[in-house]
Amino acid sequence: MTRLRVIAFDADDTLWHNETYFRFTETRFCELLEPYASHDHLSDRLLAIERRNLELFGYGAKGFTLSLIETALEVTEQRVPGATIAEILRLGKEILAQPVEMLDGAAEAIEALQTDYRLAVVTKGDLIHQESKAARSGLADQFELVEVVTEKDEATYGRFFAKLGVEPESACMVGNSVKSDVLPVLGLGGHAVHVPYHLTWAMEVADAPAPDHPRFARVDSLHELPAVVSRW
Amino acid sequence: MTRLRVIAFDADDTLWHNETYFRFTETRFCELLEPYASHDHLSDRLLAIERRNLELFGYGAKGFTLSLIETALEVTEQRVPGATIAEILRLGKEILAQPVEMLDGAAEAIEALQTDYRLAVVTKGDLIHQESKAARSGLADQFELVEVVTEKDEATYGRFFAKLGVEPESACMVGNSVKSDVLPVLGLGGHAVHVPYHLTWAMEVADAPAPDHPRFARVDSLHELPAVVSRW
Repeated sequence: MTRLRVIAFDADDTLWHNETYFRFTETRFCELLEPYASHDHLSDRLLAIERRNLELFGYGAKGFTLSLIETALEVTEQRVPGATIAEILRLGKEILAQPVEMLDGAAEAIEALQTDYRLAVVTKGDLIHQESKAARSGLADQFELVEVVTEKDEATYGRFFAKLGVEPESACMVGNSVKSDVLPVLGLGGHAVHVPYHLTWAMEVADAPAPDHPRFARVDSLHELPAVVSRW
Repeated sequence: MTRLRVIAFDADDTLWHNETYFRFTETRFCELLEPYASHDHLSDRLLAIERRNLELFGYGAKGFTLSLIETALEVTEQRVPGATIAEILRLGKEILAQPVEMLDGAAEAIEALQTDYRLAVVTKGDLIHQESKAARSGLADQFELVEVVTEKDEATYGRFFAKLGVEPESACMVGNSVKSDVLPVLGLGGHAVHVPYHLTWAMEVADAPAPDHPRFARVDSLHELPAVVSRW
């Protein structure tokens, strides 16, 4: 049996809240554009525009803000007032400036695991925003590596584990996204723990692995993490 | 005498053209807003807004596009037409989609140096944009590490050299910015080669080190690089 050496965490909605702020911003955006279109139509258009821009913008709040502006222009046939664009820009900056609010159990799990495991973070999003959040979380010193990546697929995890000098079999990824945190790591032969967040962004939805998968577990909060990984 | 082991390159305006596209976009932006303000006033306001947003946006084309939109709103007191905002957004995307145009001598220098040195890239900018440009340059395989960073100061270079497992004394940084590529590396005890680009962004202007500095050289193009570093 291979002993687990590295535990890697996703950041957004795993260590700290994130999707909440994006959803709040989307709701405010829909209210601003109520004179032009229904909330449902606006949300659908926004998601379609985010998908279309993903290859160019990647993930994160700056690309999200640009996609909000593009959606506003599109649904209003460019009649959106400048004041509304200015308010969207302000909302985007608010996401970037948001205080880091840790999830329940995150600090405790990291404290409990740091003596027995090497800890790391691998996350998507804007580089400057994620680095700033890691610094403001007060946890950055606990991690051997904080890696911001453009996509979380098997190739990315392969490079990430290589950077840490660890085989996937000896590593465990912990995160809220089945698609980005669980499936690619299981695919490489690694371990994965799913910690669902109460909101899942449409682009992250995926079917969970079978609950009896020998290298997979699902927990309700990070409080349960140390007990789960100690079995591997 | 310490032998040089690692040669690290800046990317934008060192390996491939970049500032040219930003300047072109700024010129187009000024033309679009000609009815409201002079080119000089627009450029001044844009630079002030970029500086103000730097901590939140970091470097790169997405933050630049958001700052362009903010400048347009500010100088027009929010009267800028939607069609103009849409055009600014299109110009921003054009920067992101721009083909990678290599600088003269870049490919040859990398080819010449790869057998004797470990090669790496360290650059600011948007993560997805820089990774995409590195991939499209066709040179990514030549580099042991391509690191996108939020700021290029001594602390960043300290972490970068540590990741490569090399002392600064055994490393040389090559880039077009005295401020970002030369001074912090010399400050750490490393070597630096300045390759001026014909355009320098206002935020990157700094005084060059004394030309007789023992760990510094200035070259006109990367064609001269192999000869220069062979002396160290």
